[in-house]
Amino acid sequence: MSAASGARRRRPDLEIVALERTDRTSYAACGIPYHVGGLVPDLEDLVARTPQEFRERQRIDVRTRHEVLAIDPERGRVQVRDIERSRTFELGYDQVLVATGARPLRPPLPGIDLPQVHGVQTLADAERLFARITSGEVRRVVVVGGGYIGLEMAEAFLLRGASVTVLDIAPQVMRTLDADMAELVAEAMRRDGIDVRTGVGVEGFEAGVVHTADGPLPADLIVLGLGVVPNSELARDAGIELGSRGAIRVDRRQRTGTDGVWAAGDCAESYHLVAQRFLHVALGTVANKQGRVAGVNLGGGYATFAGVVGTAITKVCDTEIARTGLTELESAEAGFDHVAVTVTTPALAHYYPGADPMTVKMVAERETGRLLGAQIVGGRAAGKRIDIVATALHAGMTVHEVLDLDLAYAPPFSGVWDPVALAARRAASAVEADRAAGAG
Amino acid sequence: MSAASGARRRRPDLEIVALERTDRTSYAACGIPYHVGGLVPDLEDLVARTPQEFRERQRIDVRTRHEVLAIDPERGRVQVRDIERSRTFELGYDQVLVATGARPLRPPLPGIDLPQVHGVQTLADAERLFARITSGEVRRVVVVGGGYIGLEMAEAFLLRGASVTVLDIAPQVMRTLDADMAELVAEAMRRDGIDVRTGVGVEGFEAGVVHTADGPLPADLIVLGLGVVPNSELARDAGIELGSRGAIRVDRRQRTGTDGVWAAGDCAESYHLVAQRFLHVALGTVANKQGRVAGVNLGGGYATFAGVVGTAITKVCDTEIARTGLTELESAEAGFDHVAVTVTTPALAHYYPGADPMTVKMVAERETGRLLGAQIVGGRAAGKRIDIVATALHAGMTVHEVLDLDLAYAPPFSGVWDPVALAARRAASAVEADRAAGAG
Repeated sequence: MSAASGARRRRPDLEIVALERTDRTSYAACGIPYHVGGLVPDLEDLVARTPQEFRERQRIDVRTRHEVLAIDPERGRVQVRDIERSRTFELGYDQVLVATGARPLRPPLPGIDLPQVHGVQTLADAERLFARITSGEVRRVVVVGGGYIGLEMAEAFLLRGASVTVLDIAPQVMRTLDADMAELVAEAMRRDGIDVRTGVGVEGFEAGVVHTADGPLPADLIVLGLGVVPNSELARDAGIELGSRGAIRVDRRQRTGTDGVWAAGDCAESYHLVAQRFLHVALGTVANKQGRVAGVNLGGGYATFAGVVGTAITKVCDTEIARTGLTELESAEAGFDHVAVTVTTPALAHYYPGADPMTVKMVAERETGRLLGAQIVGGRAAGKRIDIVATALHAGMTVHEVLDLDLAYAPPFSGVWDPVALAARRAASAVEADRAAGAG
Repeated sequence: MSAASGARRRRPDLEIVALERTDRTSYAACGIPYHVGGLVPDLEDLVARTPQEFRERQRIDVRTRHEVLAIDPERGRVQVRDIERSRTFELGYDQVLVATGARPLRPPLPGIDLPQVHGVQTLADAERLFARITSGEVRRVVVVGGGYIGLEMAEAFLLRGASVTVLDIAPQVMRTLDADMAELVAEAMRRDGIDVRTGVGVEGFEAGVVHTADGPLPADLIVLGLGVVPNSELARDAGIELGSRGAIRVDRRQRTGTDGVWAAGDCAESYHLVAQRFLHVALGTVANKQGRVAGVNLGGGYATFAGVVGTAITKVCDTEIARTGLTELESAEAGFDHVAVTVTTPALAHYYPGADPMTVKMVAERETGRLLGAQIVGGRAAGKRIDIVATALHAGMTVHEVLDLDLAYAPPFSGVWDPVALAARRAASAVEADRAAGAG
């Protein structure tokens, strides 16, 4: 819908049809855990704009409950199923944008389709989860997967007074962090009363039970937070090239490999500026920006997507978690000879009330001192500092340049050296020490 | 002391003498309002390191209550007054660092030296203010000057239950902001119960009264927050060149114009990367960084100060205020043909509890779109976002580059478009619209 709006702004004359399988457009899926947890009482607050608003304000012909069954790029036609009227028809196009998103991974385990096993994606999922947790019948929740959604849902159910277990088959939660940083998250979760079990695989589900490699676990409700897969089958079946993890391959203008076909959002790849290759990133911010770029291009303008640096943030209870760039593990896997440092320091002036410690891990290229990435785990006011690092990554800064940044200081906000600058200072020392050692 | 420590790290053999007029070293003057307001009960918490610690841990010969009366760069000697023993002696040096700081401005008004007229700089000031406000005798406080210290002290006395008036002779508070943004601050202060009077000059003080151009104001306690002047007389009398606003002229290595004499901190100039000239900036962060640079150089290494972009932050009650780069007024004064945009948007996802609106004003060069600066006024979690802009200024980014930044998003932290990115988006549109109009 970002793309449709953008194209409309540039071309008042364009005929724009938006085909949507469900009955909703433009809602904040990221807000679902906060509705389930009770922080956002009204589900409709998550709706950014209704189909009717798009029709009336922007003359976009939004057709909900219309599923595209096939794209024929040769003939410039899509085959559409009108779900309501149970009929199928064809529609011609000059340009088509595939914005089919991604869906939660549902491994083919016994019992995966039981009603108590919930995904977290659509507003219908949100309604079901909300109804269950407010029914008074849910005391024990098992969250399968310790990633972003897993942690956010764990918090939501904890807020609702349930006892919560988070299972992850990996030896750590938050696989987008290095193991040492993820351990800080797991410790904080345990302090908050969440039963965190890592290295435990799920084998199947039955009414009231999750079967794990460690034995059965009672569960009134089960939530899957196992990541997402791009909805790229429609594109694949149309002969459109796929790339990383099955996401649709696009260039920086959001063009696919097939003439007249564009793709944007969670179904498409994104260029990672630090890894210097296309990857699959399913994030609302990225989807919005890609949509904006596609809209300009569909409207006859020229725009390119600047790319991502792998920034992400979340919180679980009072613990803020953020990352950007490459982790130490990712740096090693990408073949970077690197240094990594970790500092723990108060987020505010050490004497100011509420100055909780925060930990910053920073990774830099050994030879050049170029910043590669950072991870943050801390309390209030810790997480959003990752934006300093994200901005520095866009600029290709060295850690020496980061330590010199003129960052905002006053006791209620930071120590004289911001924790990010302090980490950069340590990283710069590590780079220098290494050079001195190398020279000796 | 940063410089002394840095020099010691590089040169274990160096003889380092630190001469200090008072009996303290290394305290957080910025923390004084929070001690007075009761948030930091113990004044000693503001002491980062005692003279004894410097002596024992770093073998720095710290001599407190020793005032330097004169520097003789020709002979490489300083004249020192031992205040305790009431004797004066000379000390030779190879290199001398002037780190005399700045002092609060005290205009020569009638009654300025009365005991109820307080400055806010030293821990002795803090002790006096603390004793007065906790005595139960102070009901009405007048703060003269609506800048950083003025606002922080207003908050402190409000926390203590006093009725507080802030006077400023200028037509606005916070002269480091544009008038429109300062007006948002004044409105917030009034909502918090502070009596804000702008355009009102002070004519003098008497016991219990401040005389203003608008008539007398009752006051049990008066605080001066009129800014600072560099303590550069010692340098000036030694023939060392001064620059902007009487601050000691230094190069990027912190060398003064006189051989063997260095300067760092609030007494010295700083290079402003956006204004592209040396200015006087009195801030703890800058002082620390300059001290670090001077320390490396005094220790025989090579370091340069990267410069400032004019970042500053404060809060008054629940209002966070931050700025970096150039304001619209400063951009105009510096001769930049510019565009300025202002956006007001929730700091968090609009549906998340506590998503207070925040206002971002952004200034860009009209022709190139180069970012020139930004100002933020908002609630919780608003202020520190200025660091994104500060980092982008260091990198010389355009507003188009800022809108493309991969900033951290999750509902408890931001909308899908961070307010800073949203402001950049509007600024980019303003730059483009202007070009289109110019081309037409």
